Formats: sequence, structure tokens, C-alpha cells
Amino acid sequence: MRIRMGMVGGGAGAFIGDVHRRAAALDGQIELVCGAFSRSAENSSETGKSLFLDPERAYGSWQEMLGRERQRSSEQRMELVSIVTPNDVHLPVARAALEAGFHVISDKPATRDLSEALELKSVIESADGLYALTHTYLGYPLVKEARDLVAQGELGILRKIYVEYPQGWLSTLLEATGQKQADWRTDPERSGPSGCMGDIGTHAATLAEYIAGDLIAEVCADLTIFVEGRKLDDDGAVLFRTEGGAKGVLTASQVCSGEENNLNIRVYGELGGLEWHQQEPNTLWLKRQGEPARRLRAGVDQGYLSAAAHAHMRTPSGHPEGYFEAFANIYRNFAYAIAAHEAGETHDPLHDYPTIDEGVSGLAFIDAIIRNDRSGEKWTKVSRD
Amino acid sequence: MRIRMGMVGGGAGAFIGDVHRRAAALDGQIELVCGAFSRSAENSSETGKSLFLDPERAYGSWQEMLGRERQRSSEQRMELVSIVTPNDVHLPVARAALEAGFHVISDKPATRDLSEALELKSVIESADGLYALTHTYLGYPLVKEARDLVAQGELGILRKIYVEYPQGWLSTLLEATGQKQADWRTDPERSGPSGCMGDIGTHAATLAEYIAGDLIAEVCADLTIFVEGRKLDDDGAVLFRTEGGAKGVLTASQVCSGEENNLNIRVYGELGGLEWHQQEPNTLWLKRQGEPARRLRAGVDQGYLSAAAHAHMRTPSGHPEGYFEAFANIYRNFAYAIAAHEAGETHDPLHDYPTIDEGVSGLAFIDAIIRNDRSGEKWTKVSRD
Amino acid sequence: MRIRMGMVGGGAGAFIGDVHRRAAALDGQIELVCGAFSRSAENSSETGKSLFLDPERAYGSWQEMLGRERQRSSEQRMELVSIVTPNDVHLPVARAALEAGFHVISDKPATRDLSEALELKSVIESADGLYALTHTYLGYPLVKEARDLVAQGELGILRKIYVEYPQGWLSTLLEATGQKQADWRTDPERSGPSGCMGDIGTHAATLAEYIAGDLIAEVCADLTIFVEGRKLDDDGAVLFRTEGGAKGVLTASQVCSGEENNLNIRVYGELGGLEWHQQEPNTLWLKRQGEPARRLRAGVDQGYLSAAAHAHMRTPSGHPEGYFEAFANIYRNFAYAIAAHEAGETHDPLHDYPTIDEGVSGLAFIDAIIRNDRSGEKWTKVSRD
Amino acid sequence: MRIRMGMVGGGAGAFIGDVHRRAAALDGQIELVCGAFSRSAENSSETGKSLFLDPERAYGSWQEMLGRERQRSSEQRMELVSIVTPNDVHLPVARAALEAGFHVISDKPATRDLSEALELKSVIESADGLYALTHTYLGYPLVKEARDLVAQGELGILRKIYVEYPQGWLSTLLEATGQKQADWRTDPERSGPSGCMGDIGTHAATLAEYIAGDLIAEVCADLTIFVEGRKLDDDGAVLFRTEGGAKGVLTASQVCSGEENNLNIRVYGELGGLEWHQQEPNTLWLKRQGEPARRLRAGVDQGYLSAAAHAHMRTPSGHPEGYFEAFANIYRNFAYAIAAHEAGETHDPLHDYPTIDEGVSGLAFIDAIIRNDRSGEKWTKVSRD
Repeated sequence: MRIRMGMVGGGAGAFIGDVHRRAAALDGQIELVCGAFSRSAENSSETGKSLFLDPERAYGSWQEMLGRERQRSSEQRMELVSIVTPNDVHLPVARAALEAGFHVISDKPATRDLSEALELKSVIESADGLYALTHTYLGYPLVKEARDLVAQGELGILRKIYVEYPQGWLSTLLEATGQKQADWRTDPERSGPSGCMGDIGTHAATLAEYIAGDLIAEVCADLTIFVEGRKLDDDGAVLFRTEGGAKGVLTASQVCSGEENNLNIRVYGELGGLEWHQQEPNTLWLKRQGEPARRLRAGVDQGYLSAAAHAHMRTPSGHPEGYFEAFANIYRNFAYAIAAHEAGETHDPLHDYPTIDEGVSGLAFIDAIIRNDRSGEKWTKVSRD
Repeated sequence: MRIRMGMVGGGAGAFIGDVHRRAAALDGQIELVCGAFSRSAENSSETGKSLFLDPERAYGSWQEMLGRERQRSSEQRMELVSIVTPNDVHLPVARAALEAGFHVISDKPATRDLSEALELKSVIESADGLYALTHTYLGYPLVKEARDLVAQGELGILRKIYVEYPQGWLSTLLEATGQKQADWRTDPERSGPSGCMGDIGTHAATLAEYIAGDLIAEVCADLTIFVEGRKLDDDGAVLFRTEGGAKGVLTASQVCSGEENNLNIRVYGELGGLEWHQQEPNTLWLKRQGEPARRLRAGVDQGYLSAAAHAHMRTPSGHPEGYFEAFANIYRNFAYAIAAHEAGETHDPLHDYPTIDEGVSGLAFIDAIIRNDRSGEKWTKVSRD
Repeated sequence: MRIRMGMVGGGAGAFIGDVHRRAAALDGQIELVCGAFSRSAENSSETGKSLFLDPERAYGSWQEMLGRERQRSSEQRMELVSIVTPNDVHLPVARAALEAGFHVISDKPATRDLSEALELKSVIESADGLYALTHTYLGYPLVKEARDLVAQGELGILRKIYVEYPQGWLSTLLEATGQKQADWRTDPERSGPSGCMGDIGTHAATLAEYIAGDLIAEVCADLTIFVEGRKLDDDGAVLFRTEGGAKGVLTASQVCSGEENNLNIRVYGELGGLEWHQQEPNTLWLKRQGEPARRLRAGVDQGYLSAAAHAHMRTPSGHPEGYFEAFANIYRNFAYAIAAHEAGETHDPLHDYPTIDEGVSGLAFIDAIIRNDRSGEKWTKVSRD
Repeated sequence: MRIRMGMVGGGAGAFIGDVHRRAAALDGQIELVCGAFSRSAENSSETGKSLFLDPERAYGSWQEMLGRERQRSSEQRMELVSIVTPNDVHLPVARAALEAGFHVISDKPATRDLSEALELKSVIESADGLYALTHTYLGYPLVKEARDLVAQGELGILRKIYVEYPQGWLSTLLEATGQKQADWRTDPERSGPSGCMGDIGTHAATLAEYIAGDLIAEVCADLTIFVEGRKLDDDGAVLFRTEGGAKGVLTASQVCSGEENNLNIRVYGELGGLEWHQQEPNTLWLKRQGEPARRLRAGVDQGYLSAAAHAHMRTPSGHPEGYFEAFANIYRNFAYAIAAHEAGETHDPLHDYPTIDEGVSGLAFIDAIIRNDRSGEKWTKVSRD
């Protein structure tokens, strides 16, 4: 049977809820059966209707959803809760759902800040259910390939990591227009203590740590609010050093006028380098000094790619997979993990997915850059506990 | 309610059936309820199981599926048949399904050859059900944008159309190895009278006609079998002239060693040109002599794109949509058309989808290039009836 | 000593004369000592002055230049004549210069048409001087590399050649505005029997033949005058077959609005393919089915490039060389050939340059496509004698 | 008359001397008449011979060259000294040449360090001759365009500058192999107190300051020696703030294995952004939030480019100019400046060239990042006097 999922958030006007639903549907492992899509009961009900749900299962609040679903028969009731709300709601829903015996998959960041994330981590450790965090970019097959190439030693010892995430959509005071996405992301109450860096800097940090198989140990940061009237940083630049001895530069900005979602990473080791651009995710460059650069391309027919990449592709080369498919890889892998968990079997590590560890690490990064930026000291250590 | 779909073909080992299933699932408008996935009852049954279908609705043959589903209650029974078999099975299934009162969505080409397509067209004209043809590339939002820009006169009167579709996967006699995709595509019985041109040349022709809003009127072709032992063309090049007075070049090949699925089109008119590459489908170039080329990018936030493009996008700019999403646009639009049809309402023409007309036109193109290639005459007219 | 050069054509208002002068100067092997830069003595004199020439050596006509230079001492007099005039003047100057004992380097096409080219060829065969034709694109190091890779069998037997040369600058009746470049190029008297194809189609044909190491044997063409009032073709498309059994498509156009000088070539053989784009000339793609494409890059430090490429580069990788450097390679190689000739030594074949053979072949191609286009026959053989 | 130039450095085995010679020759304004090409008299003599110089004017030392050339007649003697030696020789030669009444054009950096640069600046201020510094990348036409667009306010107030310069050639201890370029660049005595940052970080800093029309005011740096046994930094990353209030990130590295000479810059202001890549120098991207990105392309026929760009291009669009042409723009502009100086005329500011101010600024940047890196303080002010 498909895994039955309920959703918190994702009503009309939201962006990411729709992404989660498509991602959950794509591989046919998960079925959306209920939701508390909005704090407005009417919005929730309308959303449920548009999704062809049983009207009784479009709830007016997540508390109601958890309570009522628990009372359903084991063949019917929701097994998994998907959290797609603004950040401030992540912790309470995840905690309540886990404590009620459900599995949880949550949009990132895991929580608003590091202390909340550590609290959630301890909840997870004592819960029976599983927890996944949708750090989308970790779902791309060529990101898996990059991680695998580094792990196999193809680059030798890593020296340099450059990761950048420029966007332009907050070049003006968009939140003043009532635009919903801008509104909550620039509000410390709902978003957390960082704006741009919390929103997309964490993506960049997590991607770097995932590919490098290494953790950011120390940071030196410069955070900025460029747009007058904004309450949180809309730009940041960070020098960093990893536990493994590599050095890096991480930049994220939402005031790079004209940029879309231009997440890029380059990693160099003693023996070569890798380059990946999220906007053209089906290409990965492998470079070595003195050799022609090799253009690795996604595709189920690409015999040269790793098992890690192959476990996350659906089409032959030249048929582009994108954002939904990367997202779906996380949902599918988590569905496999839940199925294994329920069956008492071992989950295949090829089907990896981000967990609270990535969540803690991302928020530890934010915590450290904020401390660094405020203190005036040059280097600040990242603390993950 | 979601539209209930049954599938013919798409069992284990097939490629395109899986694509159809994901495309149908992505927008939540269609539910797969049954299938005759293989001529092997066991394969069909196993496939149904992997898809979490009711075991009773994984049929051993399409004839059985049509017969048994007709007997189900109107709340339960399949409404739509998806045909994802090799080409030779397209006509018999489509005809039987339409005559049994079902809607049909079929993989391309519509049939093996022009005469079959014309026969199917007459079946469709007298049927109550609707018919759609999954010419995937017509589902891309920036292809819609290109068509719209041409239609709005942004390029002026069209002069030149260059469309090319190089692949490399048949550079060797792959069919001799038993590779399933190669096997039937190079077999005249199952594929029809043309190999490469029927398989991908029709994609190129249909894309050109769609964007230009014009039909290919005359062709001058050179078809080739490069790989010894092959039974059908694995390469073709065609000069053409359109009804509207443009001139063009269409090439398709499956022996361009190292190429993936590199469908590209460029169109030039008196005032400017357009360029689109399927492997990077979220970018469309608009060029005008004496001005900087403009890079149009897909995204729900791109205010400068047409309503036609906006009706077919799901993500903000910089979050790549790809092959499944284009495919899903055809399924979703067809679901909307069926819903409107059933409700006696008018279907919104923004939600267009390819029909038997595109099917006939594609096979008329193949018919003409084969006649031209065999006759030795320079120019051969395309006949669509 | 540097080789002393005189120039015919290239006065104020000309484009290509300036290119020739810079190309000749770049490698320090050639010194411009005189010129008949214009039919206007005043223009010629002014041009000479701007080039810091001895005022006595800025001549009012090429006849005068040939006559007066012959009378100079052997240490002083011009040794080489560079012809940079419109096409109609190529034959008379080249013939007279060769008959007067000078070496000749000429802009392409060699002459207006095939019969003139054959006449020139016989003059060259009986002259003592050498003759070079500046088919610029043959001077690019990665074009040399491509030719070498094909010759070494890296692609196996060639199957397909795609070469295209779209420009947009004649999208309107520019010649009606008095624009000098457009004026003579669209005038049959000065340009020859073909416009676009003679001007840039010959570049495409010559490039294809050079890289393939093969000759175009048969053509099937469609030539067009798109702009009303124009006297010569501004567009052409050609299917072709080579002596070696490959098939190809050649297109050239001057009405592709928005295109600059977008000469591209792709070549595929049994084992792989090559791709080169003139507008980014320092990159050459080498593709093989089932392997990552390799991006070969120009640079004196690229150990993997052939001797043929290395003989034509000046900078380390990443320091782009371009049009002048390609042009200069032809001048420098010809200077080496002249020096070897004068010294009675053998010229190193690595330092190759286009000769009258490329000139004849290009005009034989034009001759064949015009005959084909007019005759209505499908295939027309190319005759080179 | 052409300006007569002598060269110091650039004998057999050198790289940059050859570049300077070609750049000086390209526009026909300068004539190389003499040189002290090497500390080896034999090398110098051989080099002179290969350049077809008067054997008497290939000197064994720069001191000899300065002395002997001063004694020549004013029609004959060298007017301009080109310095293409390792950095340690820049100051003594430039000082002596200027004091002897010659003009000087020098490879960068101006000197080994800031104090030398300030000393040179005071020499220049009291000399009659002019001084130019070949910061090549400032010679590219689209860099001029970028600077002009910023100056015209097309981007609004600048917010962000990202400039990066990754190379890979020092990924190993190349200096231990005796490779000449690596040898002196990693030797503090000849190179100065910084390796990578002095060599290419200064290029990046100067490019950023030039395009922004602004100066780097504060830096926070992390410099590294990655390759064991190396004496100077082979990598650096710098956060910076400008006098005008923009923030930026500058990275330079010579251990990015597989990278060639990948200098890139992106600049964002309130209204839009610019992007330029040195390896494809004929394209400049202009982006604005909510509009298609515009691809500006070099070419004398591009009416939309500024006068600043047009003053530095030679070919129509699509005929790539590159490194030598950018270099030649500096030489030509300096030749124009010398001619104006000698004629007592005003030099046209369109023909700008880098001077000791850029030299001081680059070395002040190096001075500040070294101080910052050593001190442990977070931000260090750049001092230019």
C-alpha cells in the first residue's frame, strides 16, 4: 500500500506546499489523504476539494488533524505528516506529530534556530517515527554523483569549496507590498534570526557539507541588510574552514538583481575539481589539471555514473529532470525508509535523505555566522550541540 | 473526482509507460486504476502490484481490460485509456477504446503510417470520446511562448526554420543485442516504414509546425541506413518549404555518436529570431538584428511571458522543470478537456494539447519524405488526406 | 629579414584590409611596405600615411604598384602582394602579380567563379611565386586539432557532417542604403554568381572539407533571395554527399535576423563526434557514445593537443585568441613557406595554409549548387576541373 | 612616425614579453627597435635576431640599453621602454628609464610591494615621460562597456561585487621542476610578499575597482599556502567593502585544479546586474529583475554599445577578439597618449590606460590583506599612501 500522508500548510497562496504534493505523488509511493492546509478553515476546505480529498479530512487546524487521524483505523489513518508552513510552526507540529506516533517530513530549515533544532533532535531520538528534512538540492542525482566522486577520492584531499546562491527577488522592499513569500521570510518571528542566510544560505551550507562529506568548523561572516526598512539580512558572505582542513567561501544574496535561483558549487582537491549549477542540474563538470574537462550528464543510460546517481534518475540522458524530481527523490527515499522501518527491515543507504542532522548543522551554521557578525571577532567556531 | 485511467503497455522493461504514469500523476487530475501492462499476464500482474493497483484490475490483455471495465459501475470504471505500446498496437487499441466509449491518450506516432492515421482520424470523428497524442515537446512552456511570439508577429513573416534532432544511441547495431527499445523501433512491422524519422523526425516536424503555426508543404529528403544490418533509416535530412512560404531544414539522426536527445529549433522572420534547446528547456532566446539577444526564462514569476507559457509552469524561475512536467502538461490539459467535455462546458484553448491532426501531419511528413527519397524527384508535396 | 608586402585594396571604409594588415603584423614575419589601397589616389595616399608608409609607396593603382616596385632594388622591393579587394579584382591582380614574379596572398573567394579559379590555377602552376588564400577559419588551432583527430581515426569512418553559417546583417535591403560591404557583395558583377553562398557558404564548405579531409562530391540545393529587390541569393541550404561516403547538410544565410557570424560545425563518425563553434573558437568538443563529452581547450600548455594545434597557438589556456590570430596563422605560415621557397628549403607541412585548391573547391561547390538549384534535378555532381 | 620602443626582458623562455611585442605591433603605432631581452647577452642577441632587429640594438643589460640609446639621434633613438621582467626589476628599470627621459610601459604589478610603488609614483610625478601599467583586463571593450554602464547609473547604486580568479597551474609544486614561470612567481625576492594574490589577485581587485568606479576600502582576508614546500600564498579569499558602500568578495587561487584563467566578475546594484567572463570576453550580461537578461556582444557594428567600447574594438560582431587585442588596446592608447604629449595636445580620455594609480591601488590591496591575514583582526583598512 502507498504511505498515507497528511499535510500541514500548503493552502491557496502558498508555494512550497504544491511542490511537496507533486514530489510526493511523482513516484507513486505516497498518497495524500488529509490536510490542515491553512489556519483558515475555509481555505483548508477549498484546498482539500481542489485536491479531490474526502471533505472530512480537510481540517481546520493541525491539532485537529493529529487528533482525528489518530482515531481512524490503521488501514485508513494518516501515517506521515508533511510540514510546509513558515518556520515558526515547524517545531510544534513536528514535536506533536512525532509524539503522536506519526512520521514527519518537514520543509527546511528544521526550525527557526539552533536551540529549537536541538530540542527537536531530542524529540526525534525518543520517538518511534522517522524524520526527514527536504533539503531539495541534496536530492539531485548529480549532487549524489559529486558526493560519491569526492568520497571515492577522485579529487584527492579537498582544498577549496566555493558555493554561492544569488537571488534577486528581494532587491526591493517586496514585503511592504504584502507579497506572501516575502512577508514571512523577512519577519524574525516567523522566519528566525536570519533572513537570506537562514532561507538560502542554509541550502548552500548543507550542499557544501553534503558534497564534501565534511563539516564547516569555523566561519568569518559579513551579513547585510541592503534594502532600507527590512528587518533581516538580505545578503551574506562567509569565509569558512572545514573540520577536514578545506577552506571555502559561501555567499548568498537576495538582492542580486536579475538573478533567479542561481545556486552553484565548485569543489577542488589535490587531483581535480567539480562544478555543478542548480539551474542546469543535469550536468556535472569534472576537471583535472592538464586534461580536457569532462561533462558528466544525468541519464539512466549513463554507464559511467555511480550507483548513488543511478538510484535517483528516471529518464535517459537528454530528457531533463529538474526540481520536482529532486524533491521527489527525498520523498521516495523517505517512503522506502518508512516501509523498511514498518517491516522491520534495513533501509538501503543508497536511498539517503536529509535528517535532523542536516537541520542542526544548517542552523548551527546560521548561529555561528550571526555570532561572528555581531562580535567583531574574525573567526567563530560552529557549535552543533 | 480525478479521471480514472487504464493503461495499455508499460510493463517491466518498458521506458515510456513509466513516463506516462508519472506525467499523469503529477498534477493530481488523473488516477491510474487499471492496466494491461504487458502481453505477459504475469508481467502485467507484477506491474499492477508495484503500482499498488487492485489485483483484479491488472489485466492480461487490452481486450480483456476494455471488456471488463465497461462492466464496472460508472463511479468505478476507467474513463480514459492511455496507450504506451509499440506503434503497431496504437491503431487497434485506440479504435477499440474509442468505439467502446472511452477517451484515449496515445504515445506518438499516432499510428504506424499515414493510412492508419487517416483511418484513426475517421474513427475519432465519429466517436464520443476525446483523443490526445503525447507529442511531449509541445508541452514545454517556452515552446508555447515561442509559438505565441510567432503568432503575435514578433518575428514578422517567417523566413527560415532550422530544426535538428541528433541522437547517438543507435550508432551501433544495438538491436542485435536484444535491447528492447532498439528492437522494436528498428522493426518495420512494429515501428512502421521509417525508423529514425518516424521515431524522432516526427517530433522535429511537429515542433516546427507548432511553433511556426504553419505546415510543411514540400520536402526534399535524403534518408540513410548507416549501420549495416539495420532495416530502417537511422538518419535523415530534409529541405522543406511551408505553406506560408518559409523554408527550412530538418535533420534527425540516431547515429550522431555522443549526442543524447539534442532536439533544437531556430526560427527566423523578417524582424527577429527564436532559439530553443530541449536539453535546456527553461531558456528561450529572442534575437533581433542590432539588439542584444534576450534570454527569456521560464518561471511563474516571469511577468514578461505570455499567458500561454504561464498556463504551463509550476515553479518560480530558476527551479528547473523538465521532461515530466512537459509531459504532464499534456495529460493535465487533456484531463481538463475531458472534464469540460463531460460537464458540457467549453474547454479553454490555453490548455491545448496535440490531437490526431498533429498525428496525421507527422505521418504525412514521413509519407512524403519516403516517397521523395525513393522517387529521385527533387521536391515532393506533403499530402495530409 | 621580414618579408616585404604590398597591399591592393584596404583603403578607408574597407573592413578586411585592416584585418589583413593586423594579421600580417602580429607575428613579426611580414612588413607592409607599400600599397594601392584604393582606386582613389587620395584615399590610397591617406591610407598610406595613416600606416606610416613612405609616401612614394602609396600608389594610385595596382598596375602602378607592380610596375614601380619591380624597379626597386632587391633589398627594398615588395616580395608579396596581398589582395583585399572585391572579388572581381582578385583574378587580374593575382595573375599580373604572379606573372611579375611576386608571391600572392588573396582574400577569398579566390575569384568570382569556377572558370576564373581554374584560369588562376593554371597561372599559379606556371609561376615561380607562391599563392595563398585566406580562408580564415582554417587557421584556428582547434580546427587544426579537429582535422587531426579525424585524420588519426579518432572518429572512425565519418558518417555525418553538419555545417551552418547563419548571419543576420542582410535581413533588410542594406545595399540600398549605400553600405559598402553590402553593396558589392550583392552585386553579381563584383561578387560573382552567388551572394550569400559565395560569401560565406564557401567558408562553410571549405571548413567541412578541411576537417573531414574529404571533398563534397554531390549536392542538392535550395537557394533563395528572401529580401525583395536583392540580386543574389541571401540564403541557401544544401544536402551533400562526400567522395568518402559521408553525408552532410550545409546551410548559410544572411537573413537570420539577430545572428552575428555564427559558423558552427559538427562531424560524426562511427566512434564519436566533434563540435566547434567559431564564436567561441578556443573550445572543441569531443564526444563518444557512452562517455562524458570532453571539452578540449586551446592553449600552449595543453599537452593533450596535437602538434598541428600547437603550431598555431601563442597563449596559455584561458587567454583567448581569436579572429586576428587565426588570420595571422595563415600569414605566418605563408611567410614561412616563402622563406623556405626562397632558401630552397622544404616547407614544414605543419605550417599549412589554404591554396588555390581550396579556392577551386569552394567555387566548384558554388558552381554545383547553382546548377542544381536551376536545373530541378535532385543531385548534381561537383566538378573541380 | 611610429613610436620607437625598447624592451627589457622577454628573451627566449619568457611568456609575457612575446605578448607585449604582439600587442605593441597589432595596431601599427609602435615599432620595436631595441631590447635588453635577457641578463644573458647571448639570449638577448638571439632574441633580437629572431625579431629581425639591428644586431647592435640587442643589448646585454638594460643599463647598457638606456645609455646607448640616449646617445642616438632623436630620429632613431628609443622613446619608450617596455618592462616585462619579473617584479623585482620593475622599479629600478622604470626609475632609471623615466629619469633618463624615456616613457615607460610596465607589466604588472607596478613593483614588488606598496612602498616601492609609492616610490615609483613619486618618480613619475617628477618625470617628463609618461607611465602605463599593462593591467590587460582593463583593455577589453566589454570591460569598458561595463564601467560605462555603471558610471551611467544603469545599475543604480552598487551593492555587491563578486570577482573571482581561479587557476589550477600551481596545484603541485611546479617550482620544484624548474618551470620558469612558477619559479620566480613563488620566490618572495623576485615576486614580492604575496604569490597568488600579488600575481592574479591584483588583477581581480583592479578589475573590480575599474568597473565599479570605486575603491576597496576595507578587507578581511584568508590567505593560504596549500602546496607543501611553497613559500608564498597560492590561494586567497577576501571579503571587502568599498569607499562607495558596496560589499564584495574577491577570490583568487592557483590551486583550483583544472581551471585555466577563469577570471569572472559580477556586479549588482539597486537596478540590475552585470556579468563578464574573461574566457569569453566578447559577451557581457546585463540583468534586471523581472526582465529577460540581455546578452551584449562586442562588435564594431553593435550600435547599442558605448563610445568607450567602440573605441576599443576592431572587428564586426561574431569575429572574436581576445587577449592580444585587449593588451593591444593598452599599448595603442598609450601610444596615442605619448603622441599627444609630444605634440602638446590633450589626450582623448576615451583612450584610457592603467597608470601608477592602478599600480598603487593593487599593491595597497595586497598590503592590506597581508596585514589583515597576519593580525587576526577582522577588518583592515586599505591605505594608498
